[in-house]
Amino acid sequence: MRKIILNLATTLDGFIEGANGELDWCILEEDMHFDKFLESVDTIFYGRVSYDLWGNYQSDAAASDMEKRFSSLIQSMKKIVFSSQSRADEKATFISTDVVAEVERIRNQPGKDIWLYGGAKLITTFIENGLVDEYMISVHPTVLGAGKPLFENAARFDLQLTDTKVFKSGVVQLIYAPKTR
Amino acid sequence: MRKIILNLATTLDGFIEGANGELDWCILEEDMHFDKFLESVDTIFYGRVSYDLWGNYQSDAAASDMEKRFSSLIQSMKKIVFSSQSRADEKATFISTDVVAEVERIRNQPGKDIWLYGGAKLITTFIENGLVDEYMISVHPTVLGAGKPLFENAARFDLQLTDTKVFKSGVVQLIYAPKTR
Repeated sequence: MRKIILNLATTLDGFIEGANGELDWCILEEDMHFDKFLESVDTIFYGRVSYDLWGNYQSDAAASDMEKRFSSLIQSMKKIVFSSQSRADEKATFISTDVVAEVERIRNQPGKDIWLYGGAKLITTFIENGLVDEYMISVHPTVLGAGKPLFENAARFDLQLTDTKVFKSGVVQLIYAPKTR
Repeated sequence: MRKIILNLATTLDGFIEGANGELDWCILEEDMHFDKFLESVDTIFYGRVSYDLWGNYQSDAAASDMEKRFSSLIQSMKKIVFSSQSRADEKATFISTDVVAEVERIRNQPGKDIWLYGGAKLITTFIENGLVDEYMISVHPTVLGAGKPLFENAARFDLQLTDTKVFKSGVVQLIYAPKTR
């Protein structure tokens, strides 16, 4: 079965973006080998807002080669958008009903792993339904003081640490599996 | 000069306690060598509420030898309580005015390092006045979803990662210095 991987960046105080949407604290460096992660997945799960913001993002001419490569890899992926309203979109498949059954169907199809991108509401739905197989949380060395929390309104749960990676920039990636009881 | 060290435990979502004061997620294990930290400090800085809750905590007869040792070490320390109201307390010194000047005076006295214990409001005051020399944040493998945040209402700031320690329990200690610009 394909793994569903929540992979995202947070600040040290647990925010995925600032109160005004700030993401300028987010560091992307060669030694993170983000392309290796992107090569391990072939499908991205988005909430509707995240998809509209980032689903068709393209690096511009001024971007680094690394960013252009990431952009190109992301564009090549299959995109699934979970939304209360269905939509015809040639670049993505919209799912608006039977979310859990649809996710189970997709994860049982052959393919690479799946990147659960967010936002927070979609992540909470996935956590509550036991649909996250791996958590890759890149903790950045910044405190925002306020913003949008990663696990907003989640019911309490425990995780099992499986790995950590420390990057030159001071980012620490914490990798967890769901806790088996 | 003695270092002022903020050393505390947070959940993965950045809370120092749950919405109802829950601390039962907090893990204390032999391999954390918390006694080594306690032996490196001889003074604890508390906010008034934290002091009233924990300042004179004593392990009970049922506690483990490790807990009894921690309790005994903590009892032996000099305690400074920052509070808007002064109070006569034979076990602690209360400071209610000129906080920054008083802290500077104390940190320039001879002695071991100083443990900045909390709560959140006191921590914010220290951060805003550049009085924290080291941040030791033990990230626990639990998501609470709600609670009291460590860095509530702090103005944005960056840190410099200096070390990380991974414990058997899945706790990851992130150690930071203030970022020099």
